[in-house]
Amino acid sequence: MRIVSLAGGIGGARFLRGLKAAAPDARITVIGNTGDDITLFGLRVCPDLDTVMYTLGGGIDEDQGWGRAKESHAVKEELAAYGVEPQWFGLGDRDFATHIVRTQMLAAGYPLSAVTEALCDRWKPGVRLLPMSDERTETHVVIEDEQGRRAVHFQEWWVRLRASVPALSFALVGVENARPAPGVLDAIEEADLVVLPPSNPVVSIGTILQIPGIREAVSAKTVVGVSPIVGGAPVRGMADACLTAIGVQTSAQAVLELYGAGLIDGWLVAEQDTDVRLDGVRVEARPLIMHDVAAAADIARAAVALGGELA
Amino acid sequence: MRIVSLAGGIGGARFLRGLKAAAPDARITVIGNTGDDITLFGLRVCPDLDTVMYTLGGGIDEDQGWGRAKESHAVKEELAAYGVEPQWFGLGDRDFATHIVRTQMLAAGYPLSAVTEALCDRWKPGVRLLPMSDERTETHVVIEDEQGRRAVHFQEWWVRLRASVPALSFALVGVENARPAPGVLDAIEEADLVVLPPSNPVVSIGTILQIPGIREAVSAKTVVGVSPIVGGAPVRGMADACLTAIGVQTSAQAVLELYGAGLIDGWLVAEQDTDVRLDGVRVEARPLIMHDVAAAADIARAAVALGGELA
Repeated sequence: MRIVSLAGGIGGARFLRGLKAAAPDARITVIGNTGDDITLFGLRVCPDLDTVMYTLGGGIDEDQGWGRAKESHAVKEELAAYGVEPQWFGLGDRDFATHIVRTQMLAAGYPLSAVTEALCDRWKPGVRLLPMSDERTETHVVIEDEQGRRAVHFQEWWVRLRASVPALSFALVGVENARPAPGVLDAIEEADLVVLPPSNPVVSIGTILQIPGIREAVSAKTVVGVSPIVGGAPVRGMADACLTAIGVQTSAQAVLELYGAGLIDGWLVAEQDTDVRLDGVRVEARPLIMHDVAAAADIARAAVALGGELA
Repeated sequence: MRIVSLAGGIGGARFLRGLKAAAPDARITVIGNTGDDITLFGLRVCPDLDTVMYTLGGGIDEDQGWGRAKESHAVKEELAAYGVEPQWFGLGDRDFATHIVRTQMLAAGYPLSAVTEALCDRWKPGVRLLPMSDERTETHVVIEDEQGRRAVHFQEWWVRLRASVPALSFALVGVENARPAPGVLDAIEEADLVVLPPSNPVVSIGTILQIPGIREAVSAKTVVGVSPIVGGAPVRGMADACLTAIGVQTSAQAVLELYGAGLIDGWLVAEQDTDVRLDGVRVEARPLIMHDVAAAADIARAAVALGGELA
């Protein structure tokens, strides 16, 4: 069985760990969001790809959900001692090595997909991890604060401002020149099932779907989504701030409508969201909180089963 | 009083710490060797500049003489886990931050002299530290081993091979396009005294003197050198391997002749080397082992005093 999953960061990675457990024989291709990518200190950082890679490869900091386990912060402290900005993005020493390798390979001319494959040679995540695109795209956020109306990098809004300043809009800078990375469209076409994990529907899944050709390819397949909203609140993260910015309610119903019946065939919602419905979509309710790998596997198993019924 | 010192790495830095103590009111400009510089993992590393900066700024690992005190090695371990080469160059986490800042500034278009000044803003070494040139030059070494005759970067010969394979010759790649960094010739011209510390006469001081214009400018000044050879052996390091490669004996006499009476006015030798002489050069014998800062200061005081007599 071939499964494709689009994925953002922490939520996506934890779901994928469950999917691997639920479908151990499946060939899983993960198409990772790179709209969160940022160049810091001259180094290219791909937070979502790394979160997936570290989580599935056994290197993640389990408590915080991102970054490396047993991490130290000497480099960051030294950069701060030099007065170098930004100081609000928490890169650990072990994590720095990943960005150093990536940056060196990119500078040598390797596309991000080849770099990601090389990094995964070490981590062996058990899935094929592809960036959504080899072209550089970055989500920028228009905000308005005491400095006036301006666009900031997604990470500045998300990490530095903790999304405390309302987003007026999002723009995926560079999307007009972006193409799906090699292998992305083929993997979708060959897939028996496409799964959308409970990642952020706006700045993670929504960003991947903006890459020309991906939405069309996904729409042609059997697609099961897991609602990132449970009882009117995000399962984790700040998806509500993103949904509000684009005029969408923070509800399992509204996110389903955002994706649309043209994209989604099956939709898993939490047991308190049983009133969700949309023509052309099979909605099933079940526990959606990923307390641990077993809980994530249960959700993934339900998604795969629903996909099988719908195929 | 204005003093200019050319300097390599460990020996030069330790001498300079003594010079600062011996001449606390002097304005000292250090012209650092950049022929040892190397790009590792995409990051520009300037070992000699950093050794001077860390030593005079209080950040050096006192035992090994290079690198940062209280250093950790998470980044290096991770790079090795990714299988990235080279693994024979020992960069610590704190040190990595310096190279990250430098590389970012160089990529932004700042010349190495401006980058060095910015790094010294933090370290406050108490001297003005200038790279010999803003142009990139690198010492390469022709060796012959089981892989045949080939040129390797100086650091590969020095650090990886520990100079165990004989050097057939040295070449300062890029020297034809190199000019003294801004401020270098002015500092020499304005100096009351130029001091050559007991740095490597071939690949440190000799390299600096190869930058077009520097040897001529230094030759016009009162120059006192400190012999790096005591009783036929290097005070520290592997200067003998470098001297042998260029057909020069490992002796205080031979190094003096290598520099030449046209360059040197005063020459400090160890007490076992009292037979050293060269027409036009005042030779003085005294203890030359830099056991500690006080011993280095004694040597520097003697060099400054000799310079005063010769001026």
